[in-house]
Amino acid sequence: MTAEIIAVGTELLLGDILNTNAQFLSQELAALGIDVLHQHVIGDNAARVAELVNTAKQRSDLLVFSGGLGPTADDLTKETVAACYGDSLTLDEEELAKIEAFYLRTGRTMPDNNRKQAMVPVKGRKIVNDHGTAPGVWFEDEQGRCAVLLPGPPHELTAMWNEGVRPLLAARTGGTLHSLTLHVLGGESDLETRGGALFQHEDPTAAIYAKVGECHIRITARGENDEDAKARCEAFAQNFYDLYGDAVYDADVPALEYTVVRLLNERGWVMTTAESCTGGLVAERVTNVAGSSEVFRFGFVTYANEAKEKLLGVSAHTLATEGAVSPETAAQMALGALRAADADVAVALTGIAGPGGGTPEKPVGLVWGAAATRDGVWVRKMTLGRRDRDNIRRRASQHALDLVRRLAAGLPAPEDTTAYTIPQVEASRTAPFAR
Amino acid sequence: MTAEIIAVGTELLLGDILNTNAQFLSQELAALGIDVLHQHVIGDNAARVAELVNTAKQRSDLLVFSGGLGPTADDLTKETVAACYGDSLTLDEEELAKIEAFYLRTGRTMPDNNRKQAMVPVKGRKIVNDHGTAPGVWFEDEQGRCAVLLPGPPHELTAMWNEGVRPLLAARTGGTLHSLTLHVLGGESDLETRGGALFQHEDPTAAIYAKVGECHIRITARGENDEDAKARCEAFAQNFYDLYGDAVYDADVPALEYTVVRLLNERGWVMTTAESCTGGLVAERVTNVAGSSEVFRFGFVTYANEAKEKLLGVSAHTLATEGAVSPETAAQMALGALRAADADVAVALTGIAGPGGGTPEKPVGLVWGAAATRDGVWVRKMTLGRRDRDNIRRRASQHALDLVRRLAAGLPAPEDTTAYTIPQVEASRTAPFAR
Repeated sequence: MTAEIIAVGTELLLGDILNTNAQFLSQELAALGIDVLHQHVIGDNAARVAELVNTAKQRSDLLVFSGGLGPTADDLTKETVAACYGDSLTLDEEELAKIEAFYLRTGRTMPDNNRKQAMVPVKGRKIVNDHGTAPGVWFEDEQGRCAVLLPGPPHELTAMWNEGVRPLLAARTGGTLHSLTLHVLGGESDLETRGGALFQHEDPTAAIYAKVGECHIRITARGENDEDAKARCEAFAQNFYDLYGDAVYDADVPALEYTVVRLLNERGWVMTTAESCTGGLVAERVTNVAGSSEVFRFGFVTYANEAKEKLLGVSAHTLATEGAVSPETAAQMALGALRAADADVAVALTGIAGPGGGTPEKPVGLVWGAAATRDGVWVRKMTLGRRDRDNIRRRASQHALDLVRRLAAGLPAPEDTTAYTIPQVEASRTAPFAR
Repeated sequence: MTAEIIAVGTELLLGDILNTNAQFLSQELAALGIDVLHQHVIGDNAARVAELVNTAKQRSDLLVFSGGLGPTADDLTKETVAACYGDSLTLDEEELAKIEAFYLRTGRTMPDNNRKQAMVPVKGRKIVNDHGTAPGVWFEDEQGRCAVLLPGPPHELTAMWNEGVRPLLAARTGGTLHSLTLHVLGGESDLETRGGALFQHEDPTAAIYAKVGECHIRITARGENDEDAKARCEAFAQNFYDLYGDAVYDADVPALEYTVVRLLNERGWVMTTAESCTGGLVAERVTNVAGSSEVFRFGFVTYANEAKEKLLGVSAHTLATEGAVSPETAAQMALGALRAADADVAVALTGIAGPGGGTPEKPVGLVWGAAATRDGVWVRKMTLGRRDRDNIRRRASQHALDLVRRLAAGLPAPEDTTAYTIPQVEASRTAPFAR
């Protein structure tokens, strides 16, 4: 099965907005095993829409539209596509009542224009929209070629796709589909090489997407029903858990900080942060999770040496002899924050985010991280150079959150991290931290 | 003049990457007064490329390509487009030497494949690439219809556009162009309404783009030479400065924190932050600016009441009687941070970022901000509801940075902000802050 994506809208042609719908629809169609050979953006102009549809439907089984369902007289896409597929439109009283109720609820009267939005196909079907006023529509000609039109706002389009269109297409391409996304710490090329044939598998499929400091692996399985598809999806996911071990930090979560907050909650732990080069980024990420006030109370941004001494009790001697960017300083920052905040786990970062400030011994991108509990401290050297300041900071925050995750989950220290017990730390005035 | 944008690449058709090049090129073409009626994405397939080019060049004067200039045998776009425009390719020794030198510099031998990248048009011209290995190419047929091909990586495409393509097109469409982008605090619909006819002006043009907590107004002027275009651009920009006053915080900067760091540097001031609901976001934004260590040393994330008392000296009585989300607490946080960090200006935020925690009196989105200097404290009530947690936090950070900007620049307090002198604050145990 082949498809083309057609986004309708002047704001896309002017570059006012980014076409995120095309990316979403492309990923979804690929996961369904449907080949997308063309994407288009055009304005809401009847002649140009008709020209494009007549060309595209000759070569592709399915056309997926985003946008063009607005209420004004200019919005001609729905009528035009209907005609191309030998269909026409009729007023749907139920949809009209829904739109009128929406206006009533927000204290307004429905403009007459909006009746247009309640028009649905005579032969085809409507796609219910529980997230806005305009229903989607589905046309199908006598040769079985189809077109589906969805509204442009991304939250409406994605919800209607998931609820209304995806099940329809999954049924046509055989059975139903289930997807899950694994979140894996590591670089794309390494994970992809190690995954090898898993990424070539046909059903279930697995696709890898590179993100900052992690990758997402999206697994999609076909099944006779949802339960079956889900079971096949999870069985295939097990291959990745076996292969990557605890580098897989979670599945179907927005980001690492959500997993960290969940694990801290489960353990009944409170965390704190002591940040130099990341300047508050770790605290910002953790507190962006709703409900994080249960597990986070104090954060320290100690950008200057004076702040490291005054707020965290880092020794002036250590700062003078080892420097602010050193394993000793990172460890003292974490231990100091743990005490100052009376927390269960503290994470600290100190490094050179660039672009200035690097030396041959301590280049841009060198970051020392430390995570302390009442039992000891882990120290991790990070070499994050070659990109920009923002990227270095984001990857450092990712490593820091990983240390907290591992401590909260009772996992071992990662390979690039050395663990010291509190007696070891206390045994030496000059801290015993290896370079 | 009309144009179409054609992005070539399987990774776009699969949804692996977002088509940011199409947005950039659309904005640029619009600024040049060139109408874009179609955007396309296709794979690197000679037959499909030829079919599309032959259709598109019938209706549009210019085709702008991104991608398809890779070194492998599959990359056929350049040859295919050359043939459509009655041109062919020849080896450019200078480009070949550049590519070989690039490989030598990175300690590798150039694969034979890469010779392809040094092929340039016989009749047309090359577009120099100082940012990667593949030059761009420009074809033109006997009817004056043109195609320009640029590499896919966004940093190469944008630089080559600005340096090589934009001047060529500006000359064709008459003279040269200059753009500048004003950054204005405020909402799009309000600014657009107040701007009125300025946004309908033909030359210079002005386009407004909504961002979080601010808008960008991009002004583009045509001129006989760059100096002339720049002068016309700046003269037109003056209308917006006159209209919006000090809501225009800067021009051609990455973000508000860059302006704040520059102003603090100019004044020789050090700032500090005391953050509750934003959890470190203001500190993170400021420290993301290279060189911010000159103006930022300490930041406090005081998420819990205990942290507000312990680190900032907020009175337990105020927290008990007025609550953590109150003008009194915000002011005490700012004054406490100012003292604890021995800073020249301190900014504090305390509010309800949601989704939980709201009450009828203190709904989600209510945030109190305060900015203190040794002379007094400004208190600002922000009502930021209706969106998500992240959006509320980002807009709160924007208001906070605006307070610091105004204090550092010696501007008056904004209308929604009340200013108190230190004697006023000290005159009353129960702080005199109005609701």
